[in-house]
Amino acid sequence: MRSSTFFERFSRTFHDHPSLVKLLVVFTVTGGSLVASAESKSYDGMNVVNSHEADSKKKKVVVLGTGWAGTSFLKNLKNSAYDVQVLSPRNYFAFTPLLPSVTCGTVEARSVVEPVRRIIRKKHLDIHYCEAECFKIDAQNKKVYCRSAQDTNLKGEEEFAVDYDYLVIAVGARVNTFNTPGVEEHCHFLKEVEDAQKIRRTVMDCFERASIPTLSDEERKKALQFVIVGGGPTGVEFAAELHDFVNEDIVKLYPQVKDLVKITLLEAGGHILNMFDKRITAFAEKKFQRDGIELKTGSMVVKVSDTEISTKERSGEISSMPYGMVVWSTGIASRPLIMDFMKQIGQANRRVLATDEWLRVEGCENVYAMGDCATINQRKVMEDISAIFRKADKDNSGTLTVKEVQEVIDDICERYPQVELYLKNKQMNSIVDLLKESKGDVAKESIELDIEELKKALSEVDSQMKNLPATAQVAAQQGVYLADCFNRMEEAENNPEGPLRFRGEGRHKFRPFRYRHLGQFAPLGGEQTAAQLPGDWVSIGRSSQWLWYSVYASKQVSWRTRVLVVFDWSKRFVFGRDSSRI
Amino acid sequence: MRSSTFFERFSRTFHDHPSLVKLLVVFTVTGGSLVASAESKSYDGMNVVNSHEADSKKKKVVVLGTGWAGTSFLKNLKNSAYDVQVLSPRNYFAFTPLLPSVTCGTVEARSVVEPVRRIIRKKHLDIHYCEAECFKIDAQNKKVYCRSAQDTNLKGEEEFAVDYDYLVIAVGARVNTFNTPGVEEHCHFLKEVEDAQKIRRTVMDCFERASIPTLSDEERKKALQFVIVGGGPTGVEFAAELHDFVNEDIVKLYPQVKDLVKITLLEAGGHILNMFDKRITAFAEKKFQRDGIELKTGSMVVKVSDTEISTKERSGEISSMPYGMVVWSTGIASRPLIMDFMKQIGQANRRVLATDEWLRVEGCENVYAMGDCATINQRKVMEDISAIFRKADKDNSGTLTVKEVQEVIDDICERYPQVELYLKNKQMNSIVDLLKESKGDVAKESIELDIEELKKALSEVDSQMKNLPATAQVAAQQGVYLADCFNRMEEAENNPEGPLRFRGEGRHKFRPFRYRHLGQFAPLGGEQTAAQLPGDWVSIGRSSQWLWYSVYASKQVSWRTRVLVVFDWSKRFVFGRDSSRI
Repeated sequence: MRSSTFFERFSRTFHDHPSLVKLLVVFTVTGGSLVASAESKSYDGMNVVNSHEADSKKKKVVVLGTGWAGTSFLKNLKNSAYDVQVLSPRNYFAFTPLLPSVTCGTVEARSVVEPVRRIIRKKHLDIHYCEAECFKIDAQNKKVYCRSAQDTNLKGEEEFAVDYDYLVIAVGARVNTFNTPGVEEHCHFLKEVEDAQKIRRTVMDCFERASIPTLSDEERKKALQFVIVGGGPTGVEFAAELHDFVNEDIVKLYPQVKDLVKITLLEAGGHILNMFDKRITAFAEKKFQRDGIELKTGSMVVKVSDTEISTKERSGEISSMPYGMVVWSTGIASRPLIMDFMKQIGQANRRVLATDEWLRVEGCENVYAMGDCATINQRKVMEDISAIFRKADKDNSGTLTVKEVQEVIDDICERYPQVELYLKNKQMNSIVDLLKESKGDVAKESIELDIEELKKALSEVDSQMKNLPATAQVAAQQGVYLADCFNRMEEAENNPEGPLRFRGEGRHKFRPFRYRHLGQFAPLGGEQTAAQLPGDWVSIGRSSQWLWYSVYASKQVSWRTRVLVVFDWSKRFVFGRDSSRI
Repeated sequence: MRSSTFFERFSRTFHDHPSLVKLLVVFTVTGGSLVASAESKSYDGMNVVNSHEADSKKKKVVVLGTGWAGTSFLKNLKNSAYDVQVLSPRNYFAFTPLLPSVTCGTVEARSVVEPVRRIIRKKHLDIHYCEAECFKIDAQNKKVYCRSAQDTNLKGEEEFAVDYDYLVIAVGARVNTFNTPGVEEHCHFLKEVEDAQKIRRTVMDCFERASIPTLSDEERKKALQFVIVGGGPTGVEFAAELHDFVNEDIVKLYPQVKDLVKITLLEAGGHILNMFDKRITAFAEKKFQRDGIELKTGSMVVKVSDTEISTKERSGEISSMPYGMVVWSTGIASRPLIMDFMKQIGQANRRVLATDEWLRVEGCENVYAMGDCATINQRKVMEDISAIFRKADKDNSGTLTVKEVQEVIDDICERYPQVELYLKNKQMNSIVDLLKESKGDVAKESIELDIEELKKALSEVDSQMKNLPATAQVAAQQGVYLADCFNRMEEAENNPEGPLRFRGEGRHKFRPFRYRHLGQFAPLGGEQTAAQLPGDWVSIGRSSQWLWYSVYASKQVSWRTRVLVVFDWSKRFVFGRDSSRI
């Protein structure tokens, strides 16, 4: 309650004094960066010492991928007891939330990437990077097979195997085309830096093509019909960016064709931004309508040809429209590497690679997975209910007293976070309320339950389980968590710090991973951003745009990219976006 | 003499007070830019008025190309009496002298380009741009045939024809491979922005490949063998950039392979930078030797395979070496479009398209050519000597008196610039000295020559004729000159301002184009630049590097690129170069 009031006051202050917002930006950027720099310094000091103690019998850690999860793991690793080999086809980390900005030149591609070697060099640990793509994981023999990623006149792809003691899989996901015909061939995606650069060139191509003197108006309109498939944050942000680009820059440079531009957003569901608060969705839909961005909900793409995109409406009607460019941004699917690996380890019937709450891949030893390539398979309370009962019933009386339950409740809540969530949603203060509710009208202290009664009391709890979203925020937090586990591996061996093992003996070595949602942004164009922050705080407008600027600047992986991104934003304000087709 | 003393003093001052250099940079940059901005403002004012007077019967000017010549023509055009259509496959102007800096990330590709539409928008004239490549010029029917340049899913190349009243050809040249087998397929060039970007990616590929754990030392060395063919300013600058990149950035990021890097520069002639003063050549060769850049002069490439480059030494011996990357930078040749056009207009036996001193293409009407795609076919004095004699001999006496010669000498010098050059080289003050020399020991006033004596006096003069170098400086000056002609087309019709027509009646409409050499730079790496300025002033070292910075910053085509380039330089100083492979 208190925090929500704080946020409200906070928000009101900003609405009243917009200049404060800018001040906040400066502080957030500087503050965030100072923290980052202070952190990195303390690492450096530690690591130099550690690296002197390095011995040859270090455990080998192989990290696959240099995205959010992999990079945040590397950035937070402090333990010099490992010999780390990083393998990724991309020798840089990309700040993916800014990719939609790259598509229209609001931010340059180079400003959102940081070379991996630069990141690991600062660590002074035994970390080595190799530009190669893993194409097979052999968990049996603890090996990964890789292929070098070069394709130039260096000739020949090198293949090689790397041994590991621990494997950290953070390869991300691929775009999900739902096997729609023609998507791979004719659509643009927006997952990699190269995708964004390609979109940028194609946008310029469309405008240049529409300016060819001999074209009919029909053909011009076709060239300037931009279709975005998928109403998630990426699709919406790209639509907004494109609209801004057209209205702020293109109108001046291509005055004769500006009125022919049409942006259409196709969403199979009923609303765009459906993971956001309804107020945000409504605002975004209204803003798009005002801006002239056509929004087609309940519209599923069934086919993309080289000239037309065909959709099926809710009514069953199938219609086609010609297009100049289609950007496909509908969701993610597992990469072939992961699919193959899942078959090996008996997860063939699953859609996504499953890990436990400690990010350990289910069904194999010493393999961790995080980020978009995996999902945490949360343990259901109901599956373990007998074990929980046995563990809690210390006097083996066959019934649990309130005291007995209270002794294990912290461990239960830690092991099964859905319990806490359930209590919170029901606005209960403690588990006793829950027991009381199921037991009916008795004095709290005298509650005693047998196993069936405990089952009944907890029967609804598992309904609270939700998969984590496939976002940069989740991946980054997982990376930090796993690095922390690796940092304290030896300590935790002797002093386990996790919850009770209900099905086994003793305690878990570590606390399970717990995601803290810090909020989410949806930039809507025209310096308007929607922000949904914890505590159900929703803010829409210019002040959130400034918050967005400050958060994104402070979250940059290095001072270098921070300076570059802020420079790009300033450049855009002063000179507009560059329309050169390079 | 005086200017040389000034330069010497100037140079000495800088050596004594290096901080002055930096001050100069600021002034030059700011000053140059202020001039540019003042100019553009005055144009704007003029052009708004002019565009109101625009009528439908404007003469159509078609400009092919948006390089140095084309862009400087467009930037300097002020006359609203034309309807200008610009056709080029590149919708931007690229500041090509900075391309070698782009190859290693000292400057970003986007910082050296300016969209054409941005340039012409500021003019408020009737100028239209279309992204298309001209593939045929039909001078007979005054038409050019074009093809749109897009290659994406927009499908289909559009072809169309454009009429012209005046045609300005400024399409540049292609790389000259001298038909060496394998060059097209396996070598990198350095003419376009895309080339520079590709080189940058390939350089990173080479380093990433050399870091693959399973490679032998032999293979690593091969990957890191960089070969540059051609010891001209571009090749030398690229070699220097690459060396700096390796020594300033790569050593930190790829410490295990840095010692395997080898840069080899192949030059068919006896020395590198042979268009520069010998002091510069000697300094560059010594610096490269110190830096460990291998220099092989007298070495001609005979073949490039996918793994090896074969050279023929002066001795006739043929040797091969494996390579990781080859950059080919040996000179230029005519584009197929121009070759085809030359056949049409009877220039089939020439190597380069010939124009007269007014940049008019020889053999056709109302077609102008400038920049690297053409060369000025200077008129020889000896060809016109009888006409000159007749014109000068006003009293038809059959002999020329000093007075008669002096009356036409200004026109002669203007029409045949080699005369002036000859006098200067012989350190003569006036033509009278020349006549006197040929005539022997007589009093100046009493000299009288017949036609044979005049021929004898001027016989050596034509030896001074030189083709202009294929540089940005020449192209830019030609663009300015031609724009100026177009600006004053109507005035000059009534008041011709050029020299006497010796073979015809009256005067030429315009003064012929005259190139003013403002000096040339050769950056040699490590903040050392060689500068050769007019008046035989040679400066080598750090102060020239600052001069280079200030000249290149002030010569930028817009404030936008000026800010970007200066920011890139600062960025490099602070953060180093980016090694991400994008």
